This record gives sequence, C-alpha cells and structure tokens, in this order.
Amino acid sequence: MAYYGLIMAGGVGTRLWPLSRRHRPKQSLELVGNATMFEQAVERVTPLFGLDRILVITAAEHVDLLAEQVPQLPKANFIVEPEGRGTAPCIGLAAIHLRRRDPDATMAVLTADHFIRDAARFREVLMAAEQVARDDYLVTLGITPTGPSTGYGYIQQGERIATCRGLDVFRTERFTEKPDYETAVRMVTSGRYSWNSGMFIWRLGRILDEIREQMPELYTTLGEIEPTLDTQEYEPVLTRCWPRVAKQTIDYGVMEKATHVAVVPADIGWCDIGSWASLAALLPSDEQGNVVRGEHVGIDTSHSFIWGDRRLIATIGLERIVVVDTEDALLICPLEREQEVREIAQRLGQDSSSVHWT
Amino acid sequence: MAYYGLIMAGGVGTRLWPLSRRHRPKQSLELVGNATMFEQAVERVTPLFGLDRILVITAAEHVDLLAEQVPQLPKANFIVEPEGRGTAPCIGLAAIHLRRRDPDATMAVLTADHFIRDAARFREVLMAAEQVARDDYLVTLGITPTGPSTGYGYIQQGERIATCRGLDVFRTERFTEKPDYETAVRMVTSGRYSWNSGMFIWRLGRILDEIREQMPELYTTLGEIEPTLDTQEYEPVLTRCWPRVAKQTIDYGVMEKATHVAVVPADIGWCDIGSWASLAALLPSDEQGNVVRGEHVGIDTSHSFIWGDRRLIATIGLERIVVVDTEDALLICPLEREQEVREIAQRLGQDSSSVHWT
Repeated sequence: MAYYGLIMAGGVGTRLWPLSRRHRPKQSLELVGNATMFEQAVERVTPLFGLDRILVITAAEHVDLLAEQVPQLPKANFIVEPEGRGTAPCIGLAAIHLRRRDPDATMAVLTADHFIRDAARFREVLMAAEQVARDDYLVTLGITPTGPSTGYGYIQQGERIATCRGLDVFRTERFTEKPDYETAVRMVTSGRYSWNSGMFIWRLGRILDEIREQMPELYTTLGEIEPTLDTQEYEPVLTRCWPRVAKQTIDYGVMEKATHVAVVPADIGWCDIGSWASLAALLPSDEQGNVVRGEHVGIDTSHSFIWGDRRLIATIGLERIVVVDTEDALLICPLEREQEVREIAQRLGQDSSSVHWT
Repeated sequence: MAYYGLIMAGGVGTRLWPLSRRHRPKQSLELVGNATMFEQAVERVTPLFGLDRILVITAAEHVDLLAEQVPQLPKANFIVEPEGRGTAPCIGLAAIHLRRRDPDATMAVLTADHFIRDAARFREVLMAAEQVARDDYLVTLGITPTGPSTGYGYIQQGERIATCRGLDVFRTERFTEKPDYETAVRMVTSGRYSWNSGMFIWRLGRILDEIREQMPELYTTLGEIEPTLDTQEYEPVLTRCWPRVAKQTIDYGVMEKATHVAVVPADIGWCDIGSWASLAALLPSDEQGNVVRGEHVGIDTSHSFIWGDRRLIATIGLERIVVVDTEDALLICPLEREQEVREIAQRLGQDSSSVHWT
C-alpha cells in the first residue's frame, strides 16, 4: 500500500513563448524563485514520497533536460511518452509502469506547471487524500477559489464523507466545464465549488479498473504494452501502439462518468502559471504596478510585465503591456491579449523544426 | 572665388536612442538606404565641390569613425570642435580654417543629419545660391514646406531679387521661430514661407564680417586661435579658449539681425531625420502601415515602427508604437511620445560614461 507521486511533466507551455520553447519547456524554466517549475514540483513532494517513489512522465526530448535539473531522482523513475495524447493515456501508461513495480500502490497524479505557495499544507492534503483513496474513492484535489475565474473547470461538492487530518472531504457531485462569468460568480459565492486542479489521488487498481471499463480501447493498448515492460520489445511496441491511442483527458475519459468520486478542497496558495498574465499576477510588483525582471527604465509605464535579463529595456507610455525579451526573440503584447501568444508560437512552427520554436 | 562645402557633423541625435549613442552618433548610422547619413552628406555634394573642397567639422570622439566611413576624404579636411557650442562658434571656427586656406572662398554650410531625396536638384540650388552669395548676400537654403509643420523655423520671403538657374531667389523678410499650428497653416497657405533648413551659403569674408559685428566676443576668441593654425600651439589654445565661448546658433547670433539676406526656396525632397517618427514617415511601410526592419511577426499590429535586426520581434495588438531593438538596449514607446526618448537617453547619462549611452 505504498504511496507514489507521479509528476506529469509533458507539454511545452506555448503561451509562455518566447521564454518557453520546444527544447526549453515551461516546467524547465525558473519562473518563480530560484528553482525551475520542475525542481519545485519534485522538491515539494520529496518529504512525502521520498525520491524513490516519485515518478515522472514526460516527452523524450525533455527527459535529459529534466533529469539534469533533479539529478538526485533515479533515472529509472522517468517514463517517456512518445507523444502527448492527453492526460488519460499519460496516466494509463504511468499506471502500468507502476503496476509492474507495486500493484498495491496508491498514486497521486501531480502537475509540474503550477505554483504552490504552501508546500507543507499541500503535503497534508495529499496525505488526507490518500486515506480517502484507500476507501476506493477517486479523489480530486480541489482548489478553493480565490475569485470567479472563467479559466478553470469547477467541481461541485456533495455531502461530506470524511474529515481527515482536519480537512473535510466531500463526495463529488459534478464536474463543470470552464463557466461563463455569471455562472462562475454564482458557483464561487455558493461556497460549494472548487477549481479542478488536474491533480488526482487513487489506488492504482481502482484507476486501471476505471480505464478498463470506460476506455476499453486504451486499456487494450496498455495491455499490449504491459508485457513488454523491462524488455527490449518495450520501445518498439510503445512506438508502434501510441500513435493510434485516441487523445483524451482523464476528466472526460474517466472522472465525469465515474461514481465514488471525492474532492478534497485545498487552500494551498495554488496558481496556474499558464500565461504571462498569470505569472504577472503572482510576482511582486513595484510602485507603478510593474513586474520587472532585469534592467528597466520606464517613463509613465504602469501595470506592465517587463521580463528580460539580456539588455536594458526602456519604455515610455505603456500600460498593461507584456514585454518578454530573450536571446533570439522579443514579444510585445497587451496583457489582455496574452492568450494570442499561443498563436505566435504556432505560426513559428511549434510542431516543426523552426529555429524560433525549437 | 572657389566654392567650398562645410558639413557640420557634430551632435549625437539623442532622440534616436538606442540606435544612436555617444560613440555611434546619428550621422554615422545607416538609417535610409545602404549608406550612413554622413556618407550620403558627402556623396551628394562631391560632384559639386570635389573631395578636396569638402570640409567636415565634428567632435573629437567622432572624427575617426566618420573618417573611416569616407576614407577618400582628405584627413586634413576634418576640423575638430572640442565641444559643441552651437552653430555660430562651429561655423566661426570652420571659417578661420577656411580663411587660412582660401580667403576668397564662398562657403556652403551643410548638414549631415537630413535626408535629401533629390541630390541633383540640391546641387543646382547650391549653385544658384553661390551666384547670389557673390553679390554679398547671406543666403539661406529654404525648404518648400510639405505641410504645416510646427517643428521647424520659417523664413518669410520678401521681393524677388534674382532668378538663377531657373530658381527664384528672394530677399529674406523675417526669420520666425517654430510656430503654433494655426500660424503654421497660415504661413504655408500663403506660399511666401520656407522652412529654415539650417543650410547657408555666403562669402567667407561676409560671414566673418557679420560675426565681428554681431558677435564680437566670439570674433575675438577666433582671433586668438587663428594665428596658431598649422602650429603646435593650435590645440592647446583651442582647448583653452573654447569652454568660454558662449553657446549660440547662427540664426540667433547672426541671421536674425543681418541685412542683405536672401532665401532660395528649394523643393529637393528634404527631410529632417530627427526622431523615430520622422524616420518612420520617410521609409516605405507595408500593408498594415508598419515600417519594419528585421524579422517581425505581427498579429493586429499597425502603423508601428519595428526596427531590429538581431532577433525575431513578435507583436500583438500594437498601434502606432515604436520598437527599436539593439544589442544592449530595447526601446518601446508610442510614436506620439517619441520626443521623450531624449529624456531616456539623458537619464542614462548622455554626458557621463554610462555604458548605456557611451
């Protein structure tokens, strides 16, 4: 009944272009503090799991970079996903690896691209969730909302089913898509909703049963791969099978239709660093409301995000503007339009070998 | 009665920061076309004067840079001004140099920081002006206005005094300061005003007489310097005298109170490249009205000036914004506020040895 942490460290973070690149994904960056997102993701759960029981799943092209950042993590704990197919196949692949190692394991599915201010409390929440997961619940780590965000999915709490380590745990009534603003306000003021953090805690057997039941094609594919684990056949079989795996998230693929689902609302200073605006909101600002990294001279510049450590940045008359300066690319855009950064990154060939992206 | 051109190539061009720097002044930059402002200033009058009769006056720290750009120009033709004291002392110093060489010379005072599209016509104008100068006129090269600019001084034409090489020449009625907009509109629509180009044509004896009469202190100082020309005493004497020379422009110091002053209105495609907006107005723009040098990816970006050749510049939702990217400094400001660039340059220590400026 050992407890394992699985850190999902795939993805690139196109909305953080030009700092994030294909060869330098978001989780490998020092965005907050002096450690990378991935280092922080490992460090905050090491006291709970120990290094041996922290697994990482990521893309082949990122394994070396991430392994270098946390050299103390056993290389064997890195699982490579041939290409991203959404969180359901990702979790399924990690699950069969873990079943080979410890079929009775409990598994915490964790992220590497979120900031968590209160790591100690986060570990408490994970410990509480483990107790609930032992009762065969699929447990979601819910985030206590700090405002009516329309950028997250919401989880509706049902009846309270337990209090573990001082934390109330609720039956999950319903998963809700990203809402419109009015709905978000209503949900947040009701006090009965959490944000969906994308972090889950469950017994390994339970999640594999759910996959078998709800995603039989995926389970069949995993069944082809599993016997080859630790053999020379593994890589060729994985490479052959993976492209025909349907893209799916664990939320759609499993959670929405599952029963016996619980949520632990957690107030842990969680923050999704998905875009420049979210990073700007997280970092301390100066008297003009500017978040500045690097050398900046501003005239009448306010509430802007100035990020660069390579040259002096001088600005006049800017308000709510994002400036990100890197060695080979410069981004300038209004904070309000930072979602379109993804489009720039895509134009530059996120999926090709463009020098600007790769 | 030989005709000489004096190119004033001092100054730095603080409003073109960060491209212009103390060690890399505006006239040394390739702003339009593939030659620097200074190279163009020399090239366009070489057919008229010949290289031997083109003099250059500039700052000590810029002599080598400019001489390298036009190696065919005799090094002896460069006159060094210990520090900028305005155009009157500058012209006076050049005049005593020229008097030593050719006391009967006629002298065209020219600039290096303006763009002139029609160089052939410009030379025609200079030839016409020479004829008028031989009649002892102080001749101003007037620019036929292309709009009611409030950024230039204006010259009011009086009676026509001659027609030389097909160009009408007028007695100058009055020099006018930079006007307000209504005044500018009235002057331009009257058809009797030219912009003051800062270019002048006169007999050497005539301008030195005017300086003696109107600026006796300056003339006395020049008189101390003149006997030391071509001796080892020259530099120490110049260095000692120059700091006590009062700053003054030739317009205030001489032209406004002089009589027997003429203007040759010239339609030569003249453009003052004083700031980013003026350069933007001069250069060809793309379909979105952007002037771009370097690699640019824009979403919803229009009427902006994107200047950089060192990295990709990506912009979203910008309108009328100046972006100038150089190796060690980056400027972002609205076109309308580009006058404040000077303030940035000054803050960074135009007059000090700041790494950002020098």
